Amino acid sequence: MPDDLASIFAGRRVLITGGLGFIGSNLARRLVALDAEITLVDSLIPQYGGNLFNIAGIENRVRVNISDVRDEHSMTYLVQGQDYLFNLAGQTSHLDSMRDPYTDLEINCRAQLSILESCRKHNPGIKIVFASTRQIYGKPQTLPVDEKHLLRPVDVNGINKMAGEWYHILYNNVYGLRAVALRLTNTYGPRMRVKDARQTFLGIWLRLLIEGRPFEVWDGGQRRDFTYVDDAVTALLLAAADPRADGQVFNLGGLEVISLEALARLLVEVNGGGSFVVREFPAERKRIDIGDYYADDRLIRATLGWQPSVPLCEGLARTLAYYREHLPRYV
Amino acid sequence: MPDDLASIFAGRRVLITGGLGFIGSNLARRLVALDAEITLVDSLIPQYGGNLFNIAGIENRVRVNISDVRDEHSMTYLVQGQDYLFNLAGQTSHLDSMRDPYTDLEINCRAQLSILESCRKHNPGIKIVFASTRQIYGKPQTLPVDEKHLLRPVDVNGINKMAGEWYHILYNNVYGLRAVALRLTNTYGPRMRVKDARQTFLGIWLRLLIEGRPFEVWDGGQRRDFTYVDDAVTALLLAAADPRADGQVFNLGGLEVISLEALARLLVEVNGGGSFVVREFPAERKRIDIGDYYADDRLIRATLGWQPSVPLCEGLARTLAYYREHLPRYV
Repeated sequence: MPDDLASIFAGRRVLITGGLGFIGSNLARRLVALDAEITLVDSLIPQYGGNLFNIAGIENRVRVNISDVRDEHSMTYLVQGQDYLFNLAGQTSHLDSMRDPYTDLEINCRAQLSILESCRKHNPGIKIVFASTRQIYGKPQTLPVDEKHLLRPVDVNGINKMAGEWYHILYNNVYGLRAVALRLTNTYGPRMRVKDARQTFLGIWLRLLIEGRPFEVWDGGQRRDFTYVDDAVTALLLAAADPRADGQVFNLGGLEVISLEALARLLVEVNGGGSFVVREFPAERKRIDIGDYYADDRLIRATLGWQPSVPLCEGLARTLAYYREHLPRYV
Repeated sequence: MPDDLASIFAGRRVLITGGLGFIGSNLARRLVALDAEITLVDSLIPQYGGNLFNIAGIENRVRVNISDVRDEHSMTYLVQGQDYLFNLAGQTSHLDSMRDPYTDLEINCRAQLSILESCRKHNPGIKIVFASTRQIYGKPQTLPVDEKHLLRPVDVNGINKMAGEWYHILYNNVYGLRAVALRLTNTYGPRMRVKDARQTFLGIWLRLLIEGRPFEVWDGGQRRDFTYVDDAVTALLLAAADPRADGQVFNLGGLEVISLEALARLLVEVNGGGSFVVREFPAERKRIDIGDYYADDRLIRATLGWQPSVPLCEGLARTLAYYREHLPRYV
């Protein structure tokens, strides 16, 4: 599989929105190794995931373009001549989407429409991989959740990401652009945002643990699955490379399902120390919480041969090692 | 049931967005009879359904406010003090949504968010009934379509209406606003737009028939269901009146399922003359057509006791009679 990917991406022009962010920068690193020609677009909005340190060591192998996906003019220019677009830029905070629904709408809906319009008009041959989210399912009615589960989002972010995902599928179906969406679950690993919980609660856990402070687990009973970022990157590349993905929506899952309290214990154990407190949900969080979620990801395994390979304890160890070394660049 | 509705709506303050449009004006007429205090908001955008003639005879019983639901300031003022909001304003043309996706987004997504934000902040006790559409299901995978059918919209309008519907359900679930959505199928009757096919293909059929010109049936094999506007109005009122509707999504259907070619024959028969031609779909229509659709509407029948009462031949006869008299006011 890695050999195939090298032959597919070598010399190809790849645009990554959110390219200085967590998943975008890890993807860029893999694509550098595959000898692609890479342009990273990122707005570097402080509340989001972009961080120039994420491309430390590959600065000279990628082109960085600071702009916002809401900027139609820059995006119209940037999509031209690209073979692949990994469309990862987004507003990810559930709570922020409730406090400021319009910004979430502009980024997760309007900007997506305008990127697709630009591709349709100026580069209809491009292949697009869109980073969607399990958030659009809302509170699962059955577990594990497969792609036939109803979408019943519980926050503005989930609704807007649902629309953003469907614009991609629509443009694939109606205009013959090739597009595929991956519904990511909790993705974690080096280069994630750890300053706060805006990208994932695991970020702030890691930060506090490394700083020697107790972290907070809300409720703790919720069961979730986790994808190590390298496995998510492999899925993105497979979805880009394989025409059988065109027009499809795939869940990504992980190797294990674990309760958040058990995850907290595992994290402390892997860290060789630390502590956490279990407390009640804050009210504004509780009302948009989705409870238990874990994915049935057999469709992408069967269709694209994807297989997560990094167990949780190993992924957490690698992530802790990264932030023990680099935490000051992220806080 | 009508007695109950009178006791519920008499003296209550009711706001209708899209109030000069097809369904809005028919609803206003019923609410006048129920002695409600009615404000109609409409933008009177020429391409949409608003028409001042729609309130002929009730002009002195309603307050008309010309403004656009995208105008946050006017909407923030207008929702205050209202007991009920029938939120019917929308961009309805599937084809226009593909040609100009941003306008559809502004009306069907952003304006909906801003109406809900205004209600949340300034009138959280309001009850909202949202006019959603069967378009959000896309091409049905099973028939009849019930509310558990996956949403797989096939045009930008369907995606944006899906988001607009979910904002309403979300604000019900998270903020305690009371909101309900009705997924309307083909609704028809007096005061529909007949100038062109922007609201429904049946409009242009009626116009051409009355003008003595042949109308066009595309394909003709598609099976559909139809709701006479008086039945749709009853459903809207029941959804507003009944707390069991809060947070729910209901399909509306009709009494009969009929192919479009059979409908065309029935229309000519009811009219006592006229002709049509069956032709291929135009390409840009074909690619967003949903094929057969008819609703399973048992949920609203069981929950709210709704029951459509006007058979298709009777509804078509009433509609033809209306436009034979008033066509010049609509073209």
